Amino acid sequence: MRLAELSERSGVPTATIKYYLREGLLPPGERVTATQAEYGEEHLRRLGLVRALIQVGRVPVARAREVLDAIEDESLPQDARLGTAVESLPPGRGSTAGPEVLKAAGHRVAELREELGWNRVSATVGQEMLVAAVATLMQLGYPCSLEHLMPYARLAGELAAHDMDLVERFEAPTTQLEAAVALTVLYEPVLLGLRRMAHAEEATLRYADGPGTRT
Amino acid sequence: MRLAELSERSGVPTATIKYYLREGLLPPGERVTATQAEYGEEHLRRLGLVRALIQVGRVPVARAREVLDAIEDESLPQDARLGTAVESLPPGRGSTAGPEVLKAAGHRVAELREELGWNRVSATVGQEMLVAAVATLMQLGYPCSLEHLMPYARLAGELAAHDMDLVERFEAPTTQLEAAVALTVLYEPVLLGLRRMAHAEEATLRYADGPGTRT
Repeated sequence: MRLAELSERSGVPTATIKYYLREGLLPPGERVTATQAEYGEEHLRRLGLVRALIQVGRVPVARAREVLDAIEDESLPQDARLGTAVESLPPGRGSTAGPEVLKAAGHRVAELREELGWNRVSATVGQEMLVAAVATLMQLGYPCSLEHLMPYARLAGELAAHDMDLVERFEAPTTQLEAAVALTVLYEPVLLGLRRMAHAEEATLRYADGPGTRT
Repeated sequence: MRLAELSERSGVPTATIKYYLREGLLPPGERVTATQAEYGEEHLRRLGLVRALIQVGRVPVARAREVLDAIEDESLPQDARLGTAVESLPPGRGSTAGPEVLKAAGHRVAELREELGWNRVSATVGQEMLVAAVATLMQLGYPCSLEHLMPYARLAGELAAHDMDLVERFEAPTTQLEAAVALTVLYEPVLLGLRRMAHAEEATLRYADGPGTRT
């Protein structure tokens, strides 16, 4: 397909596609004349990933290129390509907690990993996110003991298994990696939206009888 | 306690506390002299919630005041106070999808609610987040059929039940509402961090044998 069709099918303006091409976020099309190139389904798919990263994940352009480079690096084994790609995704919000609280949160997370037997991978962006979140809970005096965190961790484990099953439906290794990165980013708001919807249902279920009916 | 102690125990600078007092985010202390006031544990707790909203949830000050007003409005039943407070939390990222895709996503989410029997509450911020997220998945061509979304929804339901159990450990109604709002915001990064950690474990488990060993 030509640039105009790629733009129409992806919903991305041609000027933006040209920018992604210049920045190396999208591989060049196959040149057919001096001024025109032909694009394929892989361009459409890659464009989806680039938009997921930049527009939904708010990943900076330079970081997005690192993610894409990791996906394409066929010299590495599949798990290393996936690891590098996913680790290049930014960790989200940090914590305003001081070094002592961060240290305590780091210990709590280490205990949690021990308890779960999550000992295959060490320092990851996910762990960094969790330590920051636990430090904030500690600092503000909200519950975050091992006992509180364990049910969330078990459910996260189940989610991760679903995520990987979804990814494995894509056949080619590179397509799998693209899907892994896109679904990491795109299912985060799905999950948070569902959790908030479930809160509203659960709260209505528990409290809708009005005040004073529960003691 | 005096302002200096409140600042020390909360880790919030006195200038910031004074700003929150001026903006009505924190109730005034009990005046003891012309220039000094006494603060209690409820100020410390409330300060934690304000920081959770503003620093972690990035809720604008005016919106934070709406959340707090809803928590304090004792003329409303508990579920209405909770509903108003949680609905005042901003929905996060929107979608760049066009109106047709948003409509299709809206239908998908309505089907999902039907399937789950989540029919106690209608239009919520959570639903708005989910519609935006599903619209983005649709637009980018990533899987988001009912069959794909259901396992996430079921897990979100389990999470919500855990969340409400945690909230119910707080005794006073107002403290419960504060905790519900704070834990909605503060457990979002906990959940996302745990999911990413679980991904890394799961990927290593599935792929660590190296490329080519899986077909």
